[in-house]
Amino acid sequence: MEINTLAQPCAALNETTRELALARQGLLTKPPGSLGQLESVAVQLAAMQGAEQPQLERVQICIFAADHGIAEEGVSAFPQAVTGEMVKNFACGGAAISVLAKTLDAHLEVVNLGTVNDPGEWPAVVRAVVAPSTANFAIEPAMTRSQLAAAVQAGRDSVLRAASAQLFIGGEMGIANTTTASAIACALLQESPQLLAGPGTGLDSHGVAHKAEVIGRALTLHGLFPLPSEDSIDGDGALEILRCVGGFEIAALTGAYVSAAQQGIPVLVDGFITTVAALLAVRINPGVRDWLLFGHTSAEPGHQRVLEALDAQPLLQLGMRLGEGSGAAVAVPLLRLACALHNGMATFAEAAVSGKI
Amino acid sequence: MEINTLAQPCAALNETTRELALARQGLLTKPPGSLGQLESVAVQLAAMQGAEQPQLERVQICIFAADHGIAEEGVSAFPQAVTGEMVKNFACGGAAISVLAKTLDAHLEVVNLGTVNDPGEWPAVVRAVVAPSTANFAIEPAMTRSQLAAAVQAGRDSVLRAASAQLFIGGEMGIANTTTASAIACALLQESPQLLAGPGTGLDSHGVAHKAEVIGRALTLHGLFPLPSEDSIDGDGALEILRCVGGFEIAALTGAYVSAAQQGIPVLVDGFITTVAALLAVRINPGVRDWLLFGHTSAEPGHQRVLEALDAQPLLQLGMRLGEGSGAAVAVPLLRLACALHNGMATFAEAAVSGKI
Repeated sequence: MEINTLAQPCAALNETTRELALARQGLLTKPPGSLGQLESVAVQLAAMQGAEQPQLERVQICIFAADHGIAEEGVSAFPQAVTGEMVKNFACGGAAISVLAKTLDAHLEVVNLGTVNDPGEWPAVVRAVVAPSTANFAIEPAMTRSQLAAAVQAGRDSVLRAASAQLFIGGEMGIANTTTASAIACALLQESPQLLAGPGTGLDSHGVAHKAEVIGRALTLHGLFPLPSEDSIDGDGALEILRCVGGFEIAALTGAYVSAAQQGIPVLVDGFITTVAALLAVRINPGVRDWLLFGHTSAEPGHQRVLEALDAQPLLQLGMRLGEGSGAAVAVPLLRLACALHNGMATFAEAAVSGKI
Repeated sequence: MEINTLAQPCAALNETTRELALARQGLLTKPPGSLGQLESVAVQLAAMQGAEQPQLERVQICIFAADHGIAEEGVSAFPQAVTGEMVKNFACGGAAISVLAKTLDAHLEVVNLGTVNDPGEWPAVVRAVVAPSTANFAIEPAMTRSQLAAAVQAGRDSVLRAASAQLFIGGEMGIANTTTASAIACALLQESPQLLAGPGTGLDSHGVAHKAEVIGRALTLHGLFPLPSEDSIDGDGALEILRCVGGFEIAALTGAYVSAAQQGIPVLVDGFITTVAALLAVRINPGVRDWLLFGHTSAEPGHQRVLEALDAQPLLQLGMRLGEGSGAAVAVPLLRLACALHNGMATFAEAAVSGKI
């Protein structure tokens, strides 16, 4: 894996189909702008797909699962065994994202990047094991350079397998990964852990304070906070943050998002952890931003800050905080309805409806 | 039509299935509460449908269309002919709600309560014409008592035709009906027209100021504002407000909501105008509130205030402001996914996933 393929240019949006779609919206039998975000996402998808009338039949959901050494610090409400157990649950159809993928007729793939409790071989699970877990980043870097490269490559590979998808959703599973994501976000945005650490799967206020303290110690250990400014972090700096305090599934998501943007596949970002991966991807390769849509705002408090850094307006605010790509999956019907309206409504002329006075 | 059937008791929610559904949510393989509003609506639907595992296959959408005498006052950005033209557009499949109903496999019915520009007979259109238009309520009461009764009955009839529906959505079409809805909301909530009047289909700030002035004059004419307090308005008072400054489609929506609650059919409320009808229904018969779910928060500024009066938390905030039931229709997939997750996810025991530490 050549980690510097991450810097290769992203695909260009199609400005012609964007303009055609925007003009079409103005002709449909409704007051201009009255479908709100459903209008703007239809126009964005038209620009991404290079088609005046975008389509969203083929949706690919890829869940990246991995364990985190930082779990040793007692930062999660659930035991580490759950990561591997949930990989099995994804494969057997019992998890939230399994039900959502089936209901949406989306293709679901699970990529196992390494779990302490190894679920073994399952038909829907791609094994891309980097190690059973990252190292405990409160003590040492989470991963080596070659582990980082392998995890990023696993993400790129998942997008290569999804080459015909009209939309790519990345999800994640990894006990303790809100701690990891918070650490990355603190380093990238130069924000304090007290601001970005949250309850994750269900910590109480004492647990959240402990989590923030662990993150603060780790950032100091790796010399990642405080830095002179957020702007002093370049693409290599972002990758080093990912290596020192990241996780295999977050690295894979980062690789997947960059690769999707390079291949011109629209991405629907999920919650806190995936948005942190999206921020890494954009810091490494700013052209990625054009290819990102955002599904929902998570109840995890740090999510809002990371969304702001990306100037993102998610479609949903349902108080979800599950991960697994679930918040993005729930937004898929909105994108599909946006396309159906854009493509299927009559124009004022076709329907012989009078225009504005 | 006996207008006092509106006061007959509503169906009771099933507290047993609510408790069973709540318990089930706690067993599913996810951190408790992590599906946010998707959990609470699944539990609400379980209580409404009297089934631990609710279903939403059969969705009925009924659009009530009518013209408004108040349009003479120049309060809309679109000409009055559009109401009748849009009835035709609904019937021919070109309107937003037509596309949404088809995509959602929902049954769409249009009820024509009277339009100045009569579209005539169409297969999907029920003719329940009360008059070509209400009277101009800036000069005289919008309707007579018998017109009010006929419009309410048309709404009740639409719910009788939808008796097997698992969800009822009411929509509306009527040029100038945000003026009507604002006038009703001002009277019911004893708020000033300056606070509740908004741009509707696209008035500029001058137009909004004129609209507020027209509403203020009408409320004074009918002795509806200011009153000693909001609490001084009883069910008969709410009906008199509806008669004096209401519209045929709003009266039909009010009748439909009360009737759905009496028959135990869950209702998904749409935007500003339908929420005003829902507030009327709840003021006339408080038991209606139990049967209401809310699809979205409209961009029309008065909507938020009316939602607050109903203590409603809508599912979506997409900046939509089209009416036609469109915001509720867009929320249907969320309710369906909530049911699919609730009914289809594995429990911790079934999936052999470890619980919280």
